[in-house]
Amino acid sequence: MAIAAYGATAGDQPLAPMAIERRATGPKDIRIAMSYCGICHSDLHQARGEWKGTLYPCVPGHEIIGEITAVGSDVTGFAVGDTVGVGCMVDSCGRCQSCARNREQFCENGTTFTYNSPICDAPGHTLGGYAEEIVVAEHFVLRVRHHREQLAAVAPLLCAGITTWSPLKRANAGPGKKVGIVGIGGLGHMGVKLARAFGAHVVAFTTSPGKVEDAKALGAHEVVVSRNADEMAAQANSFDFILDTVAASHNLDDYTALLANDGTLTLVGVPEHPNPEPNPDNLVGGRTVDFSMIGGIAETQEMLDFCAEHGIVADIEMIAADEIEAGFERMKRGDVKYRFVVDASTLTN
Amino acid sequence: MAIAAYGATAGDQPLAPMAIERRATGPKDIRIAMSYCGICHSDLHQARGEWKGTLYPCVPGHEIIGEITAVGSDVTGFAVGDTVGVGCMVDSCGRCQSCARNREQFCENGTTFTYNSPICDAPGHTLGGYAEEIVVAEHFVLRVRHHREQLAAVAPLLCAGITTWSPLKRANAGPGKKVGIVGIGGLGHMGVKLARAFGAHVVAFTTSPGKVEDAKALGAHEVVVSRNADEMAAQANSFDFILDTVAASHNLDDYTALLANDGTLTLVGVPEHPNPEPNPDNLVGGRTVDFSMIGGIAETQEMLDFCAEHGIVADIEMIAADEIEAGFERMKRGDVKYRFVVDASTLTN
Repeated sequence: MAIAAYGATAGDQPLAPMAIERRATGPKDIRIAMSYCGICHSDLHQARGEWKGTLYPCVPGHEIIGEITAVGSDVTGFAVGDTVGVGCMVDSCGRCQSCARNREQFCENGTTFTYNSPICDAPGHTLGGYAEEIVVAEHFVLRVRHHREQLAAVAPLLCAGITTWSPLKRANAGPGKKVGIVGIGGLGHMGVKLARAFGAHVVAFTTSPGKVEDAKALGAHEVVVSRNADEMAAQANSFDFILDTVAASHNLDDYTALLANDGTLTLVGVPEHPNPEPNPDNLVGGRTVDFSMIGGIAETQEMLDFCAEHGIVADIEMIAADEIEAGFERMKRGDVKYRFVVDASTLTN
Repeated sequence: MAIAAYGATAGDQPLAPMAIERRATGPKDIRIAMSYCGICHSDLHQARGEWKGTLYPCVPGHEIIGEITAVGSDVTGFAVGDTVGVGCMVDSCGRCQSCARNREQFCENGTTFTYNSPICDAPGHTLGGYAEEIVVAEHFVLRVRHHREQLAAVAPLLCAGITTWSPLKRANAGPGKKVGIVGIGGLGHMGVKLARAFGAHVVAFTTSPGKVEDAKALGAHEVVVSRNADEMAAQANSFDFILDTVAASHNLDDYTALLANDGTLTLVGVPEHPNPEPNPDNLVGGRTVDFSMIGGIAETQEMLDFCAEHGIVADIEMIAADEIEAGFERMKRGDVKYRFVVDASTLTN
């Protein structure tokens, strides 16, 4: 049965309503009626074909909140009516070393991402969350314990939340640690909230003087306007950890210079063009630059539970499906505080 | 009182006997009569002025084993007659964040390294272990629990041992982990011994087919001749951790391609010219390249105690002081198994 979705037929075409099919609910599958879907920068890159290899038709969306409408005969952990989340992945092999270590995003046999990953079912690749419903392997379905009125704002936790949670946790961000968050957008605003909740001293970096008060309101103890060389110099050699969420190519030396000895700069933004290589002279004293990509399913559940307990959600602006294109354009200008979320009830044809 | 030492007066001059002075034993100082001093590649780089900033006269040597001949009035942990070691550092501020975290090698007020670091005493910089005696702040003196007949072979643990111990420990090298050691020289042969003692599956990489059996004898489970593309390809995507000890500039992509997801390549060699930047395409899947430099004093003591308990020492070739120059030349050709150690009794003028 065809369902309503919103997607692109080519990189130079705007997103528009389309009808798609979902597979039947298999024994290990869960069928979910969409409630909300966040809009991630990746959705824009993929739909527009800015990353190589977009498969069309392209239905983006991997920050999914919905309600279970059917479960397969082997499903044990969920029931019809449960409120659940789905993030960037819908399947993996479950047998490789990475899967065994709960790092399904690095499945050695190929993670099945929520959209644009090859599958057997029509049209031959996955279609994401800008749709009325989705069918997902049980292992990739997350339990959502937030209050009902928070659910739209929970959606961005499924990508922006886990993408910042995972490296902050690995860096032991918490009391006594000085943590920088570079870029106050969809990812960065979650990074500020989480690092603050973990008890770290949080410094937000933004290019926009207009975002200083906003970043403080999100929980930053200090805000540095990164175009101000004096403000940057005052932070030299002082950070245990810096999380860099900037999605445009930029000079990393500005931030490696701010790391304390043994400090780490972790990149989670995925620029269309690579960043210039960092200057190795800044990487003495045990300083490290590395990369992080979303997080595994177990840690995503841990993140959701922590956020439910601490009342943490994203700051969002709800839009209708026919506003997605306008949302993309505003997102490109950084004109959103801080995440658009599509109200799935507006998808119905 | 002048003591006998062996050092260089300029980068283009061979090492030769010279007389130097040591400071009087201060309240927190320990005076040590040298028994043995290992020869590290750094000694050669520094004496020859291959790294910028060598201060002359230059007396190298930072793999020191000796016996205490005097202790200052505030010294509490050592007594005259104790067998002790001194590594790459002889002082640090003791107050900064790095010192507080037992990372004295990254002292924010400037670590005083065992040679070539500025000090007030004549000649204005530290002079190392190619000398009859040395005076060192108590905090930087290590207890040596090995048997007396092992002491010459313990000397290289003070640099080569801790330089490989620290990153192997940080990587949790041990049972279930696949660990690569690149370069089977002074550092690498210790890396193989330690990783094997930790219980890891150890793969040694060497450019020399002639070193295959030697590396197995050191404890490697497998040995890969890195110039053999097929042997290298067979190891692709499989290592939890690779320790790269190569002191010449080389292509890191050959080794990042061998990392498993979430694997780390740590560099401990210090080439005269930097390595080419690694290809970021190899650093997806949570792979990281970083650097490590020696280790702190507490972990050096931990390493020495572990090695004493497990009977681990370096493989050495003992030489007299007047053989240091010839040793340097052989070391440049990789013609030593695996560390030269100077018998300090041959230093006496």
